[in-house]
Amino acid sequence: MAKNLATKILEAHLVEGELIPGKEIAIRIDHTLLQDATGTMAFLEFMAMGVERVKVELAAQYIDHNLLQTDNKNADDHVFLMTAAQKFGIHLSKPGNGVSHQVHLERFGVPGKVMLGADSHTPTAAGLAMLAIGAGGMDVALAMAGHPFHLPCPRIMGVKLTGQLQPWVSGKDVILEMLRRHTVKGGVGKIIEYYGPGVATLSVTDRGTIGNMGAELGATTSLFPSDHRTKEFLESQGRGESWQPLAADPDAVYDDYDEIDLSAVEPLIACPSSPDNVVRVKDIEGIKVDQVIVGSSVNSSFRDLMTVCRILDGRRIAPNLSFNINPGSRQVLENVAAQSGFMSLLMAGAQIHQPGCLGCIGMGQAPGTNQVSLRTFPRNFPGRSGTRDDKVYLCSPETAAAAGINGVITDPRKLGELMPWPNIQNPEKYLIDDSSIIYPLTDTGGVEIITGPNIVPFPEFEALPEELTAEVVIKVGDNISTDTIMPAGNKVLPFRSNIPAISQFVFGQIDTEFPQRAQATGNGVVVGGENYGQGSSREHAALAPRYLGIRVKLAKSFARIHKANLINFGILPLTFKDPADYDLLKQGDKMEFKGLRKLVEAGATEIPVKVDGREIATLLQVSERERKDLLAGGTLNYVKQGSV
Amino acid sequence: MAKNLATKILEAHLVEGELIPGKEIAIRIDHTLLQDATGTMAFLEFMAMGVERVKVELAAQYIDHNLLQTDNKNADDHVFLMTAAQKFGIHLSKPGNGVSHQVHLERFGVPGKVMLGADSHTPTAAGLAMLAIGAGGMDVALAMAGHPFHLPCPRIMGVKLTGQLQPWVSGKDVILEMLRRHTVKGGVGKIIEYYGPGVATLSVTDRGTIGNMGAELGATTSLFPSDHRTKEFLESQGRGESWQPLAADPDAVYDDYDEIDLSAVEPLIACPSSPDNVVRVKDIEGIKVDQVIVGSSVNSSFRDLMTVCRILDGRRIAPNLSFNINPGSRQVLENVAAQSGFMSLLMAGAQIHQPGCLGCIGMGQAPGTNQVSLRTFPRNFPGRSGTRDDKVYLCSPETAAAAGINGVITDPRKLGELMPWPNIQNPEKYLIDDSSIIYPLTDTGGVEIITGPNIVPFPEFEALPEELTAEVVIKVGDNISTDTIMPAGNKVLPFRSNIPAISQFVFGQIDTEFPQRAQATGNGVVVGGENYGQGSSREHAALAPRYLGIRVKLAKSFARIHKANLINFGILPLTFKDPADYDLLKQGDKMEFKGLRKLVEAGATEIPVKVDGREIATLLQVSERERKDLLAGGTLNYVKQGSV
Repeated sequence: MAKNLATKILEAHLVEGELIPGKEIAIRIDHTLLQDATGTMAFLEFMAMGVERVKVELAAQYIDHNLLQTDNKNADDHVFLMTAAQKFGIHLSKPGNGVSHQVHLERFGVPGKVMLGADSHTPTAAGLAMLAIGAGGMDVALAMAGHPFHLPCPRIMGVKLTGQLQPWVSGKDVILEMLRRHTVKGGVGKIIEYYGPGVATLSVTDRGTIGNMGAELGATTSLFPSDHRTKEFLESQGRGESWQPLAADPDAVYDDYDEIDLSAVEPLIACPSSPDNVVRVKDIEGIKVDQVIVGSSVNSSFRDLMTVCRILDGRRIAPNLSFNINPGSRQVLENVAAQSGFMSLLMAGAQIHQPGCLGCIGMGQAPGTNQVSLRTFPRNFPGRSGTRDDKVYLCSPETAAAAGINGVITDPRKLGELMPWPNIQNPEKYLIDDSSIIYPLTDTGGVEIITGPNIVPFPEFEALPEELTAEVVIKVGDNISTDTIMPAGNKVLPFRSNIPAISQFVFGQIDTEFPQRAQATGNGVVVGGENYGQGSSREHAALAPRYLGIRVKLAKSFARIHKANLINFGILPLTFKDPADYDLLKQGDKMEFKGLRKLVEAGATEIPVKVDGREIATLLQVSERERKDLLAGGTLNYVKQGSV
Repeated sequence: MAKNLATKILEAHLVEGELIPGKEIAIRIDHTLLQDATGTMAFLEFMAMGVERVKVELAAQYIDHNLLQTDNKNADDHVFLMTAAQKFGIHLSKPGNGVSHQVHLERFGVPGKVMLGADSHTPTAAGLAMLAIGAGGMDVALAMAGHPFHLPCPRIMGVKLTGQLQPWVSGKDVILEMLRRHTVKGGVGKIIEYYGPGVATLSVTDRGTIGNMGAELGATTSLFPSDHRTKEFLESQGRGESWQPLAADPDAVYDDYDEIDLSAVEPLIACPSSPDNVVRVKDIEGIKVDQVIVGSSVNSSFRDLMTVCRILDGRRIAPNLSFNINPGSRQVLENVAAQSGFMSLLMAGAQIHQPGCLGCIGMGQAPGTNQVSLRTFPRNFPGRSGTRDDKVYLCSPETAAAAGINGVITDPRKLGELMPWPNIQNPEKYLIDDSSIIYPLTDTGGVEIITGPNIVPFPEFEALPEELTAEVVIKVGDNISTDTIMPAGNKVLPFRSNIPAISQFVFGQIDTEFPQRAQATGNGVVVGGENYGQGSSREHAALAPRYLGIRVKLAKSFARIHKANLINFGILPLTFKDPADYDLLKQGDKMEFKGLRKLVEAGATEIPVKVDGREIATLLQVSERERKDLLAGGTLNYVKQGSV
């Protein structure tokens, strides 16, 4: 049978199970990716496993999230990560070297490899034909320790690309078109594989943009073929030897299909406050803009920034507008500077920040009250910017630059009246500078791991009890993101290695009394709607509630990574058998789970719950392996039992 | 009589009083300078005065301190400042355009003018032969409203410069030599005027460095002549028409004298945690360095940064060291980039930040626990970096760069073994870019001032009571800086327009219970040692304690700006008649001030205080005008009475 590319890569890495959608499989991991917001906890977990050196082909630790050092905590975490990386044979990218995803494309990515990253935007590596999956830190720590990664076998959705993008339209508009069609839930349980004649018209970094924001579709990951564009990119990075051609077989079959005519894609924009709230730019032209940010984990490549440079060249940012550039990497900044783009940006009045995630993760750049912010970021969940009731729009660099000049939302095609389309080509040879990458040592005997005072030991969790009585501590709606569950930003993220401290911010955006109430309650339940836990991969959204006593999350459906994280920390991820039961529940309801442990042990998929004398049916859709994790009170307990 | 330059400028601006050291004088103000940390409150005060447009030749508002936007507050304040500046006819320098002091030198400074700035480093303008004085925001608001500035007439200290700085030695080493000789109290009550043949060997920006850190000597301000170097600088800025020659008369007389042979100055460094803890770099070589920062309000000029660029060119920052650049202005960055310096820094591994104060005011760049940080900043007061028990050293860009390469403290003259001394000359014509300056409007009728939710009205304070019973709420030692009284940093500064909120951080570094205790006490007294309130000009160090109920500060001596701020907010600044009485006081002591109001009204300079049945004598050394402010409960009350 003609195979699609995702199936080929999965088959080549399959360790357990069969490639039947929905059934659990285990796959071998080639690369692991950690960033600093998730990395400290992943290291603490890895260290608890007692392994001396990472067991994957290539492990990389990036420091890109917590670049604002407003006290000792972030700097201490950087030292911890640097020394731990050296101890365990991991590549380390220093602060200011760039966003993990961009740097991994540039310096490490290899077509056909499988990567597991403790960051939901790990699928950016789709641009290099990697099968790159976001996961919680615990799963990445397990992979670093040599374990395969377990996941429900995804459906493969083939998206055929035809035609060619028109001037002033770019990769961001393609993924916004996908979000417009499929919403933030449309990719759940799927690998989205792009194929067809349109693929060759897209650069590796435009493909990376599309892969990155596949996370916003809820997809397991996305995938592009490896072709002559891939080869050119790797050669321009001095890594031509890493290239191999990879593609679906002709007439390959997919589980689901879609098709995009690139020629017909128009400039699109996601309105506040969801990435799928997509409209045509031309339909909302004229809205006054206060802030523009180009860059961060997506649209921060050479092509993206140079496009903005050429648009701004000799022009001025609109008065009273703050125009910011977050380069994706030191390499991008260097190559942009070498082609005089840096000066164009400066002279136009842009504020150029060091390479890193910055505003995308709420680390600076929060907009003012009622301000409209246009960002080329992947996410605009409510409050993620750091400002309550924020008005964040997501768009292409072209659309961002057009707003920068005009001060209002503007269809970038109108720039054609002022200038020719700057059809930026990537350099044949990038300036390459690995000065900020610390390579693994062969002999790590002398390395001492330095642990600052804010890095506290991993909390201990008890096993699943025989019986459970618990209380609904909060009830939330659909599409609750991990940003809502466990906010990031400069106030919270510095506590990421300190679970007792960070847990005090859980649900802080919507209910500041949640932590206190949960702890007072003892055993707690969170009730959620559809797609609960979408967005960022941060395992703190499971770990911190668990620390507060949450034992069950009962939702209409879960986002994949969050569900895995819940299991990793011993929280039961239950869904409603009848979604209508959601409406009957309220905060304060007492829930009785009779014979819970036995049911989980016995492989029961239906767990009855007594609520106020009435019984409702809930579903526990987990694998055998996951049941063992849940019974042990979490994966680390299970691993410590020597059972993995 | 042959006059020194300071006297000439003071005479030309004298409105009231005589130039007798110690006697109050009032001088006309030509320029005012506000930055965003002090500016919002100054604007609220100015607005309370009911004046429609500023009444000085040139008023400038810079946004340089609070560039980290971690929620709505800083962005809201930027909008408030931008709209208020437009309303009142004030030049506004946008975020990212640079540090007030550097930008004022570049674009606005005029030799011979008197400037009042709500920033203690306002004397940087000494580099352009301006008499530039730091003050509290209230004083600057009064100047903007057309009032003269009152101050005790300073002594004029003449410092004769001879010889010429040796390679690898620069202006920073000269001011560190002054601090070594005179300590942080040595300049109190003085204008430090540099003269002699050595002056012409120093560039305007090196002079600016020396003027800037005259604040660390406690000086009222510093002053340089206006000579051919001044002319060259103004011409390189396209502002040659602003130049006039200015110098002391030959054989001018000074109140005090000192002399520095520039040829003999060696690379110096201020050790933690005071700017006067100065030793020779060569005496502490070899100490491991974790972080280096070049730039911020001082040593952030073209010469400073290009020196570092040339030193780093083709070299690499030491592993595990974080090397940061904070350019002084957009113009500096552009000119450095135009001469390929930007690329040298990037390729060496430096992290380049947007122009602004950043780490110097604790806005990011806090070092990790136990880390050694070398900074070209002006101050290293304990905890100012944002990290408790920090180890911050102050040094020249040359010394900073040497540590950057070697990873340890290194006498920069040793770099002579690796390379010739990069004797950087300033450009004959700077690239000039005023795109981030918003010029005053002629017609401000349509401007609406936008006030974010964190900008709360100025608190109301009651007049001085007839009798006062108060309690000592805290007793502190010598040289307590305003950083200790009212910490800055990203946690605190965003509340600068919200006195009830920011007051909860008063003395937070040393006594977190102070605010609660002060409020519970009702009327409070702070007991301090010598040079109480040195450092930053921030009036919040008076305003916030006043809000908490502090009515008296009783110290061995006060720093000038802080004393003025105390009076502005109705806190009695008393000194011990017998400093030995300091030892007898303790926290919790009850103090009775009998007939206080009558004594102040009557012009009494001695105020008796009963403490535990015993009477001690305190001194109230204030002018007639200041007595009226104190009686009214603060300057704003007095102004509102229509009496100024």
